[in-house]
Amino acid sequence: MAGNIFGELFKVVSFGESHGPALGCVIDGCPAGLELAVEDISRELRRRRPAQGVASTSRREDDEPEILSGVFEGKTLGTPIAIMVRNTDCHSTDYDNLRNVYRPGHADFCWEAKYGIRDHRGGGRSSGRETLCRVAAGAVAKKLLANYSIRITAWTSALAGLEMPRPGSPEFDFDEIEQNPLRIPGRAAAEQALKAIEALRAEGDSAGGIVSCLAQGVPPGLGEPVFGKLDARLASAMLSLGAVKGIEFGAGFAAAGLKGSENNDTPVNKTNNAGGILGGISSGQDITFNVAFKPTPSIAKPQKAIGKADGKADGTANGEIIDLIISGRHDACIPPRAVPVVEAMTALVLADLVLLQRAARVL
Amino acid sequence: MAGNIFGELFKVVSFGESHGPALGCVIDGCPAGLELAVEDISRELRRRRPAQGVASTSRREDDEPEILSGVFEGKTLGTPIAIMVRNTDCHSTDYDNLRNVYRPGHADFCWEAKYGIRDHRGGGRSSGRETLCRVAAGAVAKKLLANYSIRITAWTSALAGLEMPRPGSPEFDFDEIEQNPLRIPGRAAAEQALKAIEALRAEGDSAGGIVSCLAQGVPPGLGEPVFGKLDARLASAMLSLGAVKGIEFGAGFAAAGLKGSENNDTPVNKTNNAGGILGGISSGQDITFNVAFKPTPSIAKPQKAIGKADGKADGTANGEIIDLIISGRHDACIPPRAVPVVEAMTALVLADLVLLQRAARVL
Amino acid sequence: MAGNIFGELFKVVSFGESHGPALGCVIDGCPAGLELAVEDISRELRRRRPAQGVASTSRREDDEPEILSGVFEGKTLGTPIAIMVRNTDCHSTDYDNLRNVYRPGHADFCWEAKYGIRDHRGGGRSSGRETLCRVAAGAVAKKLLANYSIRITAWTSALAGLEMPRPGSPEFDFDEIEQNPLRIPGRAAAEQALKAIEALRAEGDSAGGIVSCLAQGVPPGLGEPVFGKLDARLASAMLSLGAVKGIEFGAGFAAAGLKGSENNDTPVNKTNNAGGILGGISSGQDITFNVAFKPTPSIAKPQKAIGKADGKADGTANGEIIDLIISGRHDACIPPRAVPVVEAMTALVLADLVLLQRAARVL
Amino acid sequence: MAGNIFGELFKVVSFGESHGPALGCVIDGCPAGLELAVEDISRELRRRRPAQGVASTSRREDDEPEILSGVFEGKTLGTPIAIMVRNTDCHSTDYDNLRNVYRPGHADFCWEAKYGIRDHRGGGRSSGRETLCRVAAGAVAKKLLANYSIRITAWTSALAGLEMPRPGSPEFDFDEIEQNPLRIPGRAAAEQALKAIEALRAEGDSAGGIVSCLAQGVPPGLGEPVFGKLDARLASAMLSLGAVKGIEFGAGFAAAGLKGSENNDTPVNKTNNAGGILGGISSGQDITFNVAFKPTPSIAKPQKAIGKADGKADGTANGEIIDLIISGRHDACIPPRAVPVVEAMTALVLADLVLLQRAARVL
Repeated sequence: MAGNIFGELFKVVSFGESHGPALGCVIDGCPAGLELAVEDISRELRRRRPAQGVASTSRREDDEPEILSGVFEGKTLGTPIAIMVRNTDCHSTDYDNLRNVYRPGHADFCWEAKYGIRDHRGGGRSSGRETLCRVAAGAVAKKLLANYSIRITAWTSALAGLEMPRPGSPEFDFDEIEQNPLRIPGRAAAEQALKAIEALRAEGDSAGGIVSCLAQGVPPGLGEPVFGKLDARLASAMLSLGAVKGIEFGAGFAAAGLKGSENNDTPVNKTNNAGGILGGISSGQDITFNVAFKPTPSIAKPQKAIGKADGKADGTANGEIIDLIISGRHDACIPPRAVPVVEAMTALVLADLVLLQRAARVL
Repeated sequence: MAGNIFGELFKVVSFGESHGPALGCVIDGCPAGLELAVEDISRELRRRRPAQGVASTSRREDDEPEILSGVFEGKTLGTPIAIMVRNTDCHSTDYDNLRNVYRPGHADFCWEAKYGIRDHRGGGRSSGRETLCRVAAGAVAKKLLANYSIRITAWTSALAGLEMPRPGSPEFDFDEIEQNPLRIPGRAAAEQALKAIEALRAEGDSAGGIVSCLAQGVPPGLGEPVFGKLDARLASAMLSLGAVKGIEFGAGFAAAGLKGSENNDTPVNKTNNAGGILGGISSGQDITFNVAFKPTPSIAKPQKAIGKADGKADGTANGEIIDLIISGRHDACIPPRAVPVVEAMTALVLADLVLLQRAARVL
Repeated sequence: MAGNIFGELFKVVSFGESHGPALGCVIDGCPAGLELAVEDISRELRRRRPAQGVASTSRREDDEPEILSGVFEGKTLGTPIAIMVRNTDCHSTDYDNLRNVYRPGHADFCWEAKYGIRDHRGGGRSSGRETLCRVAAGAVAKKLLANYSIRITAWTSALAGLEMPRPGSPEFDFDEIEQNPLRIPGRAAAEQALKAIEALRAEGDSAGGIVSCLAQGVPPGLGEPVFGKLDARLASAMLSLGAVKGIEFGAGFAAAGLKGSENNDTPVNKTNNAGGILGGISSGQDITFNVAFKPTPSIAKPQKAIGKADGKADGTANGEIIDLIISGRHDACIPPRAVPVVEAMTALVLADLVLLQRAARVL
Repeated sequence: MAGNIFGELFKVVSFGESHGPALGCVIDGCPAGLELAVEDISRELRRRRPAQGVASTSRREDDEPEILSGVFEGKTLGTPIAIMVRNTDCHSTDYDNLRNVYRPGHADFCWEAKYGIRDHRGGGRSSGRETLCRVAAGAVAKKLLANYSIRITAWTSALAGLEMPRPGSPEFDFDEIEQNPLRIPGRAAAEQALKAIEALRAEGDSAGGIVSCLAQGVPPGLGEPVFGKLDARLASAMLSLGAVKGIEFGAGFAAAGLKGSENNDTPVNKTNNAGGILGGISSGQDITFNVAFKPTPSIAKPQKAIGKADGKADGTANGEIIDLIISGRHDACIPPRAVPVVEAMTALVLADLVLLQRAARVL
């Protein structure tokens, strides 16, 4: 497959370029009879839109979704649900100087090496804008999961090198997450982080960070050993996001330094080092994982880059090193806007596994 | 799908339980005309077998593979390649006491919650023994990749809380990796780590660690955006391994704390923070990633565990807390034996993407 | 999967209901660098539109496609190609009387039995209108196949019980096919068939027929044994069309009555009883097959039908037999309009196999 | 995919060559908790073995299956079920003269054109012997379907140009099918057909025929519109069998000549022209279809064939026409032995759809 379809039973097809006519998704395999309104999707897309604040791009898209098929009298039909969002605020000429250069930290060279052709406007399909397809599809998945009382919450747990409050600490405030533009679970920490981001932006620089995700109410038994394990699918889902460089479940990398007697969750120690997953199957405990995002590669600071010789169709750089100034509109850090995307991808994984589990046993 | 098939064009089907008659794999989609001998597979399987040493299980299997189909006069036919390895050294009765208990840190409860039935002997299909299927298939993938001059090397980079020499440091010795049972790239470090493992085993405990992997010679252009990205597939492949709790590419989690100007690889700074992958596509630089393994959950120390009430078919534990002593034969740490498995899974991902890339462009 | 995705590498996703906002397709896996214009798609969609004549529905849709993604400066990007056609001429109220009745020969009852919900307007997704998604996608596949000099031609070879001229007979005129509304390869035969159809329509009845298809220039070697054989895929493609009840390749059902010595194609007898396929792989000879279409089930004649009791959500008919008069706009026979659809599905199968063949051998 | 995997949830992987070490299958996705014994599989394999009689090959294989994995204490585990049958009665040297010739009506040339390499011994993987993999897997599917009270019965309905008794006629005797070696539902007809086959064999010739299949007890709602329709899947399944040249459902090709008012099944006319499938979904009526088999291409009569020039790796025939005498052991007609294979493939399709249907609706 060419890589734009996700899932086994609850399948999502994503399409669209950043500066093309439209982006969207088709969901094939959503069960029939699910109540679904445009507002269910709009609500999640609004969460993904650039925040009013210093950390985000100034591109302003309404991102109003249209449901093209699959819903009849307020319920899903069991047929494909196609959702489309038009691009309206494209400033494609901002990118003219990128036609013949490969931006550092971006996919430009790789895409051209792969396909021999590239839409340089706004990153084309490698743009973060593609994630709206996932958020739209994830909104439908969330509706399905609500029937199972599964709840997914993500937040920014580290930003610009600063650690944010952790679950269990007195500063950690669940209700604060959606109250600040950086989606940090603590007001004081959010203010501190905002200052750090402002300082970086003023320098023409950008920040990375970590998004943590918690899935509650997941019944035991989800995950398809051995290659379709719950954690394998979540890892695949998260690493399919543009700027993600790592993922860890439960105790994660720290578990590598523990003894077995320390790391094993037992009925008496009340830990959840496994992050709710054993043998690739949900255990009934909370699912927890962290996702590392690199800093936004588009920075205002001048950088060296490799230029492309005209007419080289094979994507080979010609080795010419040029001075690059990136214009266009970019987020100073990705994690806050990635929070609903991480939730959406988690929802897609769980919705798929919930359906697959229906076939696990004879009745 | 039920999760035992991996890959899009170079597909691998894994089968077998730890104490069943046999394990093996079927490869569907290996190109025709590839030279392949049993010894190509045996060689890799020997690397996966328990080492002569303190760190490994005492189970002794010859693991001699038999090629059942797909090879004719020393070459692949283009038809499915079935490879089988018989189980011969099963001590199934060692596990009788596990029939009605869920071991801490193991998949026992989860599998039973999923399927309502479980093969308790040696972990059944959740056993690490299943990885021999992957190593056998990976041996075939490596043969294919050799045609493309792609080389994959993994090693133990952290063990029992100790950091091992890193590439670039004077202590790092590539040639040492396969010379010590812990697969550590440095003799002194290997000896130190062996002592730490011996100490843990003497305590009845176990250790975790990190395996690092390097793929060299990977051409630019491999990876299928947006859901089949190279890193997404590698992440899925690694998290499909039993004790893995995390993965990071290039600078990984550390990148989350860097500035964009620090993290971007440019033509002048000579870094490889991206780990050879941008936008989910190989860049032509070395592919690098780290995989975190938790400590072996089977430990000799007495533990508390949850018992299963007789006759409860739904896998629900009855809440009774019991004292558990685990017998059977187990590795004191997983990373050294996981090294060839990490390589095999990497080979499977790359073999698949090499074939998929053939369809990326009009000719 | 839920059944709306076709193909392995050249994947097509179809979406849309007959009276919903839009129908369309997403192609994932079209190679990059293929020249593609909207007119390439429009041209094929015009062939699928109702003809000016007695045999077709009076629904009038412009069916102007919009390419939403995947094409940049006249060439495919390698990214998903989304194509959308809006529904504009819906007379949904024509179907109000069908909300609580299951039409004979239609999918009404079956869809409701499956999903527990049904869009009764124009057949919803079971409408023949869905085939425009296939024709749009097939137009792209045809562009790809043109690079390989593969040509696909279908025609009406039987209609209303009348046999039309066969290839090789003096009456068979290839150039006539697209010159008459019934797509019959012979003017006299076309006029005769038109009269037969007119007579049936006057009676309030409908006709079935056979579409024959010829693929020329197909290189030997296409088809994936054993389950993805060329004929197996074509059969699946054709039986996925609404009114199709059978398919036969080469000598087809007649071969069942021949002796081996009569049926075998040899280098001296110059026959093509195999229809260009042996062992599920193309032989290099012309691919030939016939597809049987049942008569249009929507007829003006009064019929008995089963009514649905209000509030029965499970789709079970309540056994009440009612008198049904079908309004709405319908074709008096399907084969002529199905000709471009059969070609499109053939193109999708061949495009997929052409790409898959690239992975069949080591290079 | 390379074509050796069938199904979406109940997946079957087939492997093995006619004269290789073994053939077999792996089933991934069989629900856990199904009772399964070796005898369930042996029984079906015995039905596929050559009959004691003039119509069949003299190759004698015990075809005793071994279950390698997936079953524990008499029940399926939910893990892959691997089944293997060893080849024991290979007379590979019988085929030495076929190494450099392409037999008429066989896949020899096509396979070599595809892969550039071919196992000429007994047809390699294009042998009818591959169908034992399907029968073994189908036996498991039948066990699952028995839980749903679905019964599948196939028989020889035409042979050597002779029509056999049809359902509803007084000569049709369901209980006779498995009582005669030709699997004809009527004793007198069976005797007549046997004489015809004997006469053909005496001439050094072979016969074709038709297998009819009936599936009873199939609940309404099975089939995945639009590309995974029940009839599309059955067509794909049947055309994946070696000698099949056509399939028709219900009234089939005859429906193409009927009027809509004649063909529509209504609550008063009691017909089943649809063959139990409307819109690609089961209706609850009996599923009925016919499958056309060409005559066995291996005949004793001398034939002309194309020879292969030594060393031509690309499979291109060199145009040299040679005289061919086929030795080896072959069936004089395929349908009687194909009966259990048709049943098996039908069972695989239905088992898959039964599981997929579990995901069709919200609960």
